[in-house]
Parts: sequence; C-alpha cells; structure tokens
Amino acid sequence: MTIAEIARDFAHLCRTGREAEAAARYNAPDIVSIEAIESPFARCVGTEQLAAKWAWWTENHIVHSIAVEGPFLHGEQFALVFAMDFTRKQDGERGQSSEVALYTVRDGKVVEERFFY
Amino acid sequence: MTIAEIARDFAHLCRTGREAEAAARYNAPDIVSIEAIESPFARCVGTEQLAAKWAWWTENHIVHSIAVEGPFLHGEQFALVFAMDFTRKQDGERGQSSEVALYTVRDGKVVEERFFY
Repeated sequence: MTIAEIARDFAHLCRTGREAEAAARYNAPDIVSIEAIESPFARCVGTEQLAAKWAWWTENHIVHSIAVEGPFLHGEQFALVFAMDFTRKQDGERGQSSEVALYTVRDGKVVEERFFY
Repeated sequence: MTIAEIARDFAHLCRTGREAEAAARYNAPDIVSIEAIESPFARCVGTEQLAAKWAWWTENHIVHSIAVEGPFLHGEQFALVFAMDFTRKQDGERGQSSEVALYTVRDGKVVEERFFY
C-alpha cells in the first residue's frame, strides 16, 4: 500500500468510529505517541502503552460525536483533523475540542503519532 | 513572545487576510517552505524565494474566501488548517481546497513551513 492508501484507510476507520481497528491494522509495534502537554500519557511507546492510553480515554469520557478531516499528505507523513464533542465522566463536564494528529509512516506502518492542540 | 503567542498572532494575521504581514513579522531570513508535490515552488529557501512564490500565487488566483482553524500547538511547532475557495485565472476554474500548514519556530522565528494536502 502507498502512504496515501494507508492514510485514506486510516482516516476512514477513524471517521467510522473504528480508531482501535486503525491502530491494530497500522501501528508499528514500537510506535511512539506524543501529546502536546504533560500528562501520565504524554509519551507512550509501543502498542501496549497505547492500548492503556486508549482504554483510559474511553473509560473516562463519553464521546457524542467525532468529525475527521483529511487525510492531508506530505511525504512519509499525513495529518488528520479531529473535532470532538465529549463529556468527562469524572465531573460531567461537556466539552468540544479540535486537534491535529500528525502520523509518520515507515515501511507501511505508523511509527509516530503526534497531537497538536 | 512564547510560541503560543507567536502562533496566535500568526493565525490572526492569516485569518484577517494579512498573510504577507505574518510572513514579514515572523519568517526567519533562511526559512524553508516545502510543498507536498513537485512544482517550481516545491522547495523555497529564504524570504526572497518565498516572496516570489507568494507573488506567483496572488497573480494567478482570485481568492474568494479563506477560513483558518488553529493554531494547534505542540512543542516548537504549530499547525493551521486552511480552507480556501479560489478561481484559477489561467482557465477560470473555481476550486475549493483545504490543507494543513505545519510551522516550526526557533528563536521566535518560523524556520520552516510545510504543507499537507
């Protein structure tokens, strides 16, 4: 698959609520996931740590909707823009956020995801 | 200025049609500008080449509207999302495009801009 094909399939899976499937299909075993601010999950390495991060997110938030723009391609990277409407279970606070996710692909696998907000 | 302050001012200038002012205020003298596909302006280095690229763009397109999302921050980089409605003067073709621009800041100046589409 070309990077464009990977990016389009990855975006399609995220757009249809199948983020975990996108991760399972395309993340490299040693993927690095980097958030923009300090948190317990600011930097995760490997599919196991990423799965823990994902589990924490889904356990602590109710997602009402996610819109995904993209993919936007450049060389071995592609970007997606996520707009999300969610409620934090901890305090019932509802919020809207949007962020850019930048993915780096090598040998057909996503080796890094980096989030901007 | 912090990178967040630079990013917000840069976005504000672009949002209000003052892209050239954003460039004049924040671009480093040796800025590198990298497009995602081959073209005469695929890779420009320095403010003079960037000005030539910008002049080519404005001379050959009529821009009906630009929407700018962001800035989205991460470390020394920030991203903007541009959605544009324009007409190519050459053939009168009207088009809509959206792209992610990724800016890298060092010592208070933008040293690289990289476009994804």
